[in-house]
Amino acid sequence: MYRSHNCGELNASNINTEVTLAGWVQNSNDKGFINWVNLRDRYGITQLLFDKGRSNENVFEMAKTLGREFVIQVKGTVIEREAKNKNLPTGDIEILVTEMTILNAALTPPFTIEDKTDGGEDIRMKYRYLDIRRNPVKNSLLFRHKVAMEVRKYLSDLDFCEVETPYLIKSTPEGARDFVVPSRMNEGQFYALPQSPQTFKQLLMVGGMDKYFQIVKCFRDEDLRADRQPEFTQIDCEMAFVEQEDILNVFEGLTRHLLKEIKGIEVDKFPRITYDYAMKTYGNDKPDIRFGMEFGELNEFAQHKDFPVFNAAELVVGIAVPGAGNYTRKEIDGLIDWVKRPQVGASGMVYAKCNDDGTFKSSVDKFYDQDDLGQWAKITGAKPGDMIFVLSGPANKTRAQLSALRMELATRLGLRKPEEFAPLWVVDFPLLELDEESGRYHAMHHPFTSPKPEDMALLETEPGKVRANAYDMVLNGNEIGGGSIRIHDKATQQLMFKYLGFTEEEAKAQFGFLMDAFQFGAPPHGGLAFGLDRLVAILGGQETIRDFIAFPKNNSGRDVMIDAPAAIDDAQLKELHIKIDTI
Amino acid sequence: MYRSHNCGELNASNINTEVTLAGWVQNSNDKGFINWVNLRDRYGITQLLFDKGRSNENVFEMAKTLGREFVIQVKGTVIEREAKNKNLPTGDIEILVTEMTILNAALTPPFTIEDKTDGGEDIRMKYRYLDIRRNPVKNSLLFRHKVAMEVRKYLSDLDFCEVETPYLIKSTPEGARDFVVPSRMNEGQFYALPQSPQTFKQLLMVGGMDKYFQIVKCFRDEDLRADRQPEFTQIDCEMAFVEQEDILNVFEGLTRHLLKEIKGIEVDKFPRITYDYAMKTYGNDKPDIRFGMEFGELNEFAQHKDFPVFNAAELVVGIAVPGAGNYTRKEIDGLIDWVKRPQVGASGMVYAKCNDDGTFKSSVDKFYDQDDLGQWAKITGAKPGDMIFVLSGPANKTRAQLSALRMELATRLGLRKPEEFAPLWVVDFPLLELDEESGRYHAMHHPFTSPKPEDMALLETEPGKVRANAYDMVLNGNEIGGGSIRIHDKATQQLMFKYLGFTEEEAKAQFGFLMDAFQFGAPPHGGLAFGLDRLVAILGGQETIRDFIAFPKNNSGRDVMIDAPAAIDDAQLKELHIKIDTI
Repeated sequence: MYRSHNCGELNASNINTEVTLAGWVQNSNDKGFINWVNLRDRYGITQLLFDKGRSNENVFEMAKTLGREFVIQVKGTVIEREAKNKNLPTGDIEILVTEMTILNAALTPPFTIEDKTDGGEDIRMKYRYLDIRRNPVKNSLLFRHKVAMEVRKYLSDLDFCEVETPYLIKSTPEGARDFVVPSRMNEGQFYALPQSPQTFKQLLMVGGMDKYFQIVKCFRDEDLRADRQPEFTQIDCEMAFVEQEDILNVFEGLTRHLLKEIKGIEVDKFPRITYDYAMKTYGNDKPDIRFGMEFGELNEFAQHKDFPVFNAAELVVGIAVPGAGNYTRKEIDGLIDWVKRPQVGASGMVYAKCNDDGTFKSSVDKFYDQDDLGQWAKITGAKPGDMIFVLSGPANKTRAQLSALRMELATRLGLRKPEEFAPLWVVDFPLLELDEESGRYHAMHHPFTSPKPEDMALLETEPGKVRANAYDMVLNGNEIGGGSIRIHDKATQQLMFKYLGFTEEEAKAQFGFLMDAFQFGAPPHGGLAFGLDRLVAILGGQETIRDFIAFPKNNSGRDVMIDAPAAIDDAQLKELHIKIDTI
Repeated sequence: MYRSHNCGELNASNINTEVTLAGWVQNSNDKGFINWVNLRDRYGITQLLFDKGRSNENVFEMAKTLGREFVIQVKGTVIEREAKNKNLPTGDIEILVTEMTILNAALTPPFTIEDKTDGGEDIRMKYRYLDIRRNPVKNSLLFRHKVAMEVRKYLSDLDFCEVETPYLIKSTPEGARDFVVPSRMNEGQFYALPQSPQTFKQLLMVGGMDKYFQIVKCFRDEDLRADRQPEFTQIDCEMAFVEQEDILNVFEGLTRHLLKEIKGIEVDKFPRITYDYAMKTYGNDKPDIRFGMEFGELNEFAQHKDFPVFNAAELVVGIAVPGAGNYTRKEIDGLIDWVKRPQVGASGMVYAKCNDDGTFKSSVDKFYDQDDLGQWAKITGAKPGDMIFVLSGPANKTRAQLSALRMELATRLGLRKPEEFAPLWVVDFPLLELDEESGRYHAMHHPFTSPKPEDMALLETEPGKVRANAYDMVLNGNEIGGGSIRIHDKATQQLMFKYLGFTEEEAKAQFGFLMDAFQFGAPPHGGLAFGLDRLVAILGGQETIRDFIAFPKNNSGRDVMIDAPAAIDDAQLKELHIKIDTI
């Protein structure tokens, strides 16, 4: 061992102890006759003292040659510091160095290894191994480990068994694109990397494992939007002989456990709202409920006058923004421009200021009197000093637009507090969603989700209205997990594939093994999967997942540090029976 | 929830309780007026009683329709059993059933769901979900989970941080073949699946993570020998600021912890032997030391007479087989044939019986007298009643042959007891090994392993003699883990690539990022990796890993259950910029 202690553990109780430390030079403060060097490792920082009067001359001179990030080993005595640093666990002491070895020199790093670095995103990704030395990244990785350990402990204590499912599986053209792996031993054939272990965990239920979980990498070859990764980690779970209620209780328990153990926060029973309620009230199936601004539907009090825009709209809907009644004309115009951007897509926005004296001033005073506006205020819950913003148009689009505005305003008003946690369940998701392009229905969750028995009859007549036994857990405006009760009999599964447009042959070729399995005694079962990357980021009070992943890829799916993907040898291609198709 | 209790937990203390159970029908014993059904789940078996006199008639009749593996839910009362079964935790009670629901019918399974099944390997793999219902497989998976949890707990308590490293990395033509993944977004380029997270864990050390571990899937596209899998799981570890001794101590501690917690076995400090000693004494770098039969080198006492075979040999070496002195001529001939098989490759074998009266009878009495044979006995440690077997020829080949014989005889003699555990360390491995075909040296461990400083000078003159700071943990004749102290400076790493035949350009293209990293303050570091599949199999007292993997592949790398790999769509190929190359 190159050290007797780490750089974070020495304090006044160690004074006069001889110690050996090893670590990185954080910085030096050379006053000529006296030279302080901060030595850093994962555990902390300890101040080293090189004193012309008290240190060996060679060591004293060598210390002057140390650059940032040099790796050194020192021996010395723990002494009391004159100028104590109360912000540092080791701030009462320093090490009077008697011996030193430079274990490895270092080039000057391309960015500073400080909590607030001068390095931009690209350079930090290229030198990710240096970025990891910085506390924000290092602590995020340690935090992730702690969360994963607590997840495993909690589930294992409940008799869940972690089972490793295979990574080399079969491609299915459903859902997102698969990453595939050419097989050398099976010419012309390919494995696929799993988008999730869905069918395997269901087979484990058929196999009687009863309670399964796995923290597992999954893969999706998608065009990467910001803050998505082609490989991501799921907490994947499945249980047999359960109903929806059982699953919600177990994973609500897990989340409550994490909030308590990791964040020291006690949370009440999670609210449960339906998908329909979420869409009507927040315009969104993953609402952030840390703040109000719930939607008020205004058709009744907006379509009785001569304002043609509202009269022509399917939906007129508003929100009350707390304390925004004093927004200037310029601020308001800025917001109107914001909702009219193509990313949001509103064609305009109406506003009504709620004056402190209980009167209103709106952009449509020509059409609406104070009574009308008073009704708007009542329905949106606006109080004196608030501002009501109203959008109108086709119901779904308008809700989405108002949801975007609601989130934007909450962010601007500082209502999305990272250390406040408001989890909830959204239940009763639709089974199917209409793909407007193809006019076909797709499974909203996946093809293995069971419809609610009481809605089965609607499958033939109004497929869009069939509700599923499907649920999402939402935390602070993010979907952190979702799941469903599965189909567990062959006939229903066949029917589902039929409604999803599979021919019988396609269904058999792709999922025959699962339907076969259902014939040999499949128990009722269901489960869910949490996105671990997102979960740890939110628990860590961050909006972006990148610092919680040791070696993330950029938006082109590249690892810029190792420079992957890359070309491979012709011999390798030949062995795999493939050629590059340059077109 | 479909049940109030599971099928393994009810006992006499629950008598008169109303319960609901769910599970699979293991079997029925229908006596006409009374019908017993064993209900099984992951946790156990509970006997159900259907009694014409006491059960509802519908339920009684329905019970007669139940087939094996039907999934049912029953309600009933726990009653005392008349004929108790002391071998079953639930053997004191049975359930007098009052209500029953058939949750799912089952076709007759293609093999019996019993500890000893009538199903062959192939059919069990195709219906793996049924195989998992059998105790031997189910318990192996539960056991694996328990081992993995203990590993994580032990390492985490020692401040190791589990960090997830990427699965989509870069192909390197070194070592075994990579599985590759064509990139859609980067035309003509490929990711590779990791053979191990080797370079990433080293970068984590450069990044100051200090103590890393990960239980992680790794991939090798090898022609599959028996009991190898293309995807396998490693316990991967790395530590900074350590010497070999530190690593051996930590992972000896881990292994001792597992043996104690999982098997209840206390093990002494592990023996440490050098690679050279292992080869000389056992002919093998992963010796099974649960039994003796150590090699005795007999050149001195075999090459002083006129036996030309021995006189011409580089090495004459023997073992004493305990209690084998009474082997018949036929048994001996059988063993001689066994060592002459091409898989072993000996050209013949000499034997010497150690009679109970202290005399000897050998197949070479013509050349050797009783004194000579007495020396052989002394050197091989043979006692009266034992048999000495002697092979001769080129040293390395002969050792390998005798090692094969030693293991075969130990198996036949029942000396390889699955519930006896004899771990050891083999240290001081050679840095390089000569590839006889190409005449080039390869890294025995991998190119990042550090040579022993005192042997560095030999690199130019006798590269085969350079020893590495490399070590294996061996358990019961299996290498369960191996590792090394790594090179941590650019100059040595460059030198190593040069000796391994890399041009400067090749080294830079493939491992430039690592050598760059070494320039920014890399600490001394080292680590190791355990094979989890093998480790759990051995701890579980088994020789084969297959039952400890939920969904293994066959020897052609196929998953016969889901029928993967498989052809993919032309559209998919096109998007990935590749074509099938049928030649």
